[in-house]
Amino acid sequence: MKATVFYGARDVRVERVPDPELKSPTDAIVRITRAAICGSDLHAYHGNMPVEPGFVLGHEGVGVVEEVGRGIAGLKKGQRVVVSGLVACGECFYCRRGQPSQCAKAGSAVFGYGKNAAGKLGELGGEQSEAIAVPLADYTCYPLPDGVDDDAAVFLADILPTAFFGALNGEIHPGDTVAIFGCGPVGLCAVLAAHLFGPAEVFAADSVGYRRDLARDLGATAVDLGEAKQKILDRTDGRGADITIEAVGNEGALAAAFENVRGGGTVSMVGVLGKPSYDFPMGLAFQRDLTFRVGLANITAHIPRLATLIEHRRIDPRPIISHTIGLDETPRGYKIFDAHAEGAVKILIKP
Amino acid sequence: MKATVFYGARDVRVERVPDPELKSPTDAIVRITRAAICGSDLHAYHGNMPVEPGFVLGHEGVGVVEEVGRGIAGLKKGQRVVVSGLVACGECFYCRRGQPSQCAKAGSAVFGYGKNAAGKLGELGGEQSEAIAVPLADYTCYPLPDGVDDDAAVFLADILPTAFFGALNGEIHPGDTVAIFGCGPVGLCAVLAAHLFGPAEVFAADSVGYRRDLARDLGATAVDLGEAKQKILDRTDGRGADITIEAVGNEGALAAAFENVRGGGTVSMVGVLGKPSYDFPMGLAFQRDLTFRVGLANITAHIPRLATLIEHRRIDPRPIISHTIGLDETPRGYKIFDAHAEGAVKILIKP
Amino acid sequence: MKATVFYGARDVRVERVPDPELKSPTDAIVRITRAAICGSDLHAYHGNMPVEPGFVLGHEGVGVVEEVGRGIAGLKKGQRVVVSGLVACGECFYCRRGQPSQCAKAGSAVFGYGKNAAGKLGELGGEQSEAIAVPLADYTCYPLPDGVDDDAAVFLADILPTAFFGALNGEIHPGDTVAIFGCGPVGLCAVLAAHLFGPAEVFAADSVGYRRDLARDLGATAVDLGEAKQKILDRTDGRGADITIEAVGNEGALAAAFENVRGGGTVSMVGVLGKPSYDFPMGLAFQRDLTFRVGLANITAHIPRLATLIEHRRIDPRPIISHTIGLDETPRGYKIFDAHAEGAVKILIKP
Amino acid sequence: MKATVFYGARDVRVERVPDPELKSPTDAIVRITRAAICGSDLHAYHGNMPVEPGFVLGHEGVGVVEEVGRGIAGLKKGQRVVVSGLVACGECFYCRRGQPSQCAKAGSAVFGYGKNAAGKLGELGGEQSEAIAVPLADYTCYPLPDGVDDDAAVFLADILPTAFFGALNGEIHPGDTVAIFGCGPVGLCAVLAAHLFGPAEVFAADSVGYRRDLARDLGATAVDLGEAKQKILDRTDGRGADITIEAVGNEGALAAAFENVRGGGTVSMVGVLGKPSYDFPMGLAFQRDLTFRVGLANITAHIPRLATLIEHRRIDPRPIISHTIGLDETPRGYKIFDAHAEGAVKILIKP
Repeated sequence: MKATVFYGARDVRVERVPDPELKSPTDAIVRITRAAICGSDLHAYHGNMPVEPGFVLGHEGVGVVEEVGRGIAGLKKGQRVVVSGLVACGECFYCRRGQPSQCAKAGSAVFGYGKNAAGKLGELGGEQSEAIAVPLADYTCYPLPDGVDDDAAVFLADILPTAFFGALNGEIHPGDTVAIFGCGPVGLCAVLAAHLFGPAEVFAADSVGYRRDLARDLGATAVDLGEAKQKILDRTDGRGADITIEAVGNEGALAAAFENVRGGGTVSMVGVLGKPSYDFPMGLAFQRDLTFRVGLANITAHIPRLATLIEHRRIDPRPIISHTIGLDETPRGYKIFDAHAEGAVKILIKP
Repeated sequence: MKATVFYGARDVRVERVPDPELKSPTDAIVRITRAAICGSDLHAYHGNMPVEPGFVLGHEGVGVVEEVGRGIAGLKKGQRVVVSGLVACGECFYCRRGQPSQCAKAGSAVFGYGKNAAGKLGELGGEQSEAIAVPLADYTCYPLPDGVDDDAAVFLADILPTAFFGALNGEIHPGDTVAIFGCGPVGLCAVLAAHLFGPAEVFAADSVGYRRDLARDLGATAVDLGEAKQKILDRTDGRGADITIEAVGNEGALAAAFENVRGGGTVSMVGVLGKPSYDFPMGLAFQRDLTFRVGLANITAHIPRLATLIEHRRIDPRPIISHTIGLDETPRGYKIFDAHAEGAVKILIKP
Repeated sequence: MKATVFYGARDVRVERVPDPELKSPTDAIVRITRAAICGSDLHAYHGNMPVEPGFVLGHEGVGVVEEVGRGIAGLKKGQRVVVSGLVACGECFYCRRGQPSQCAKAGSAVFGYGKNAAGKLGELGGEQSEAIAVPLADYTCYPLPDGVDDDAAVFLADILPTAFFGALNGEIHPGDTVAIFGCGPVGLCAVLAAHLFGPAEVFAADSVGYRRDLARDLGATAVDLGEAKQKILDRTDGRGADITIEAVGNEGALAAAFENVRGGGTVSMVGVLGKPSYDFPMGLAFQRDLTFRVGLANITAHIPRLATLIEHRRIDPRPIISHTIGLDETPRGYKIFDAHAEGAVKILIKP
Repeated sequence: MKATVFYGARDVRVERVPDPELKSPTDAIVRITRAAICGSDLHAYHGNMPVEPGFVLGHEGVGVVEEVGRGIAGLKKGQRVVVSGLVACGECFYCRRGQPSQCAKAGSAVFGYGKNAAGKLGELGGEQSEAIAVPLADYTCYPLPDGVDDDAAVFLADILPTAFFGALNGEIHPGDTVAIFGCGPVGLCAVLAAHLFGPAEVFAADSVGYRRDLARDLGATAVDLGEAKQKILDRTDGRGADITIEAVGNEGALAAAFENVRGGGTVSMVGVLGKPSYDFPMGLAFQRDLTFRVGLANITAHIPRLATLIEHRRIDPRPIISHTIGLDETPRGYKIFDAHAEGAVKILIKP
């Protein structure tokens, strides 16, 4: 089959690779009908993650079940599913607590980031390809309702649950003010997710104009980074936002998240910093009684409710799509997404 | 001043009564600019509550502070405020827990229902009048932001916080299905309030067509009472609603709320039954593991966040207003509201 | 094998019945090493439940896995397990929410109450016997840690998780006052469970002296039913208990639970009333803003944490055991338990 | 009056200073009957905080109301009270949310740390003295029940509520494993507080033997710092503690707290680091999905429930007292507390 293969920094190619195969009774093979490029794929694309040359990229995919292992109970051939970017068993200590990112069986295993990202599973492929072998498929695949088309469903594989996880971690209450730093795809999904908790106002800050425009279309008060602080103070009696969400994965956005949260509030981080440590503002956090939350999102736990919300048209992530390209065009997709060129936001791939 | 005086069942008159006076250092006098007729006023109107002839009715009011006692710290003459229908101190064991309906100082004291409804306060007037003396006014009055006009603000005195309390008691999570039984003013406010918690679908059931139309305009899936059960089952994989809200105060609606909730769900009652006991479906509740919540709403605790939500245009209760009448017309207002005549829903009074 | 067979009101006999067999790949056969008689078995014993003559009684059991179906993943022959009195799949919409009592696959299925109690499973046996066939055994059986002996473990099959469920439903906070009505086995377990939430005081009311003594030994302030109200008011500034728990299943105890809860508090019912309806004090509940919770407990969801607490000696239910009898003596066990004779509290059976 | 005056690093003296005076109608004068030396006083003692020479130290005090301003509603002369180390109004946006450490009126104001620590109040004294002027005294002073003697009550001024706040921030559930790093007075109070949430096991780690002994006496599994990790893994199926609490305020203890928490767990910090920033383990926190909470504790909000728990003998902090000295001996008290000499743990002062 064809797949998007990593060769080195800024060098990805579409090539023929061996077809995926069932290796365990709880695997399923899914033929991909829609994949996507994620902001965190750029860490690999930039050569900042230990991905092996020759590895297939991608952890967002929707498709049709082609084959199932004999231990599979809930999936059938021909069924349309979203494949969670995170693999988990659904039954261990962690999964039962709604924390599949810590799954005792899979161990923080994600598709498409190289062999080191396979957790306890030994091996995982990538989804920017024609097909994928999905381990622990009964829980990792989620059958899609008719009302959720492939374009919307591909958001369920990672960035919409990740953004929801970030909003949930913020413990937003009705009437609260939320400020999101970063209006890339995951930040825009956070705008959608934050609105599920009844906030009075959702600020969305970014330095890129067309992304601010999109945030505004999705219901946020869009602000340039430089003006965020004053505008937030003006609208919150000088207190700051009840909850701030970092949605980029860089230190400037995280500093802004700490600077703009009110005393007693929460800073929730969904961006991936990609560095082992961070100069945490401990004095400020102590004086202001802050909660800080960060983590590989519990994606699989949140897919069902988000699928229902899309089905009932309470959430529609499709306006975030800027391009839909063929699998052969993936290298160009990486290039324009990385450069914020051609108005790139979420780029889908139709194999 | 002029006021709406109760004389007996279905006999209310607008007459001159003595002006209200400060009786305690923590009182304030508020000149009413907007009042309203509430569904629960009908219990008095029907003669089913122990209201003394000669008593002034009404517990929903917005106005301007005219005079304050010397113990008042936060209110000033000329300030525009909403007067909570429920009087509370804001400082006792209960108020600090967010349960002002049980205030240790005021004791479940509400305006406009006769002497027995004054809790521990001895005496309280009614707000369908030109002015009112407000005890414990620092907490019972809430200063209004400019962005909340009188028409919207009068909903803050009771029915919007009451509906919010009902939704909050339901512990709605994003993606849940909510079913509201009754599309009178408080049921319609519950439609608004339920949406603050990110439900996938809000059903609103009523037998009156024009009220169903309003519910639909506010975002609900409006259904006739007879068809509610089947439609809810169809949309919830046969489970029933995660949360049902009784918003009328009659046994039929409450029976429907129990019948349509899923196992492990919550029945939240905001209607006032007006009877001392109810034939509770214990076998069903046991088998289905149900939570039932009912109570005089903690109105005052929820006014601030709801005022903020109106100010930011996240909630707009004004479409629920069907009539705005002068104080002299209050008797007619009661009549059409009681009869569901002339498309009556929420009737405001402009003294 | 031998088993305790129901013949009619107050007529149970120990007889030979066919050995249990695997009927589905997800079944397991467990050889019972410890069973018990439960307060709710008395509803059957009194002839007040539709149990068919010839049916084997009992829903509390600990034992050793003797045989497993080929679909079983987590159990092995020879493993010591507690069998949850409630059968559930662990994977459906309800089980994932921690509500196995509503399991989509099993449907409120309990052992030992006749064919009608088998939920969607068609058939279930009873555990006051030498062996039992357990459906959905991967979730319904819980492997026991070494530190939990059979005597303690049999409490995990029903009454300790049921009591914990009742305490959890009460949402007890540190410093709260809890009042438990009924000091039978489940009420005594509620004394243990309530203490896990850091209450300032746990009242336990019963009219039977030796049961009050046991409650006192377990840390409660034991009171006679007649003096409960005054003593609770005296110790709560005249407010009443924050949470009351009904632990008998009769209307007097439930009335006391409503009478003794403070405004804004919760009445949690773990007793089984055994009647389809109840004359609910709606006026009181409205005026006092009450939450009422009742349900077939989500036993299986709470077994792991309670087993851990027993293992670490934070909870020890064994003082509640008054008798340990052989399987042949079960008829006598029912008799003395029913009569509160011979100091009967929890009666264990050692087949 | 006499008071403990700061002169410079390791130089505190007991001297005569002017008597405190009422400066605002909401002040009260409290004559101190019991004060204490706190671990965070050592930051001042070491010269690491900007305390002005001549300033009176101390933020923990119990005493008798001597005089009240005319705006005081709830306190009377002669009443025995604990004075919260943190001053707050009890009525603002933050106080109503249970976050008095962010009080809009007082602004993170604490006694005894110099002029910079007075928040928005301009000036505050210290409590290691014969008397203190307490601003916003209706909320900042808490009247003591008879069952709470001065020795126990002085723990309510700071370290017991601070430790409770740390345990609360951990969101401990029944059956969880908690690990506390540091067995100084606040760490030992954390042992008491953590037990209020029903944990299966509370580890307490310290390198000082006599402090580990005390932790063991209070119910913890005491471990040396070096052996903590292995012992915790052994008892948690290799996962780590569900919640870790840093209770010293140094980087080693905080590193241990991060190293020993399980995936999806919470690190709650109650020690005061005394440095503006910290090298936060972001990679670990991301991979393991962690929550980190730190803050000036919401002391005043938690005093009532903790006083009740002491009154009912559910918590007794008095075993943590190692010395009770006269006011003249305060300099020696600082010296032995700082040196961990003479078995010093909590040192009380009896003026």
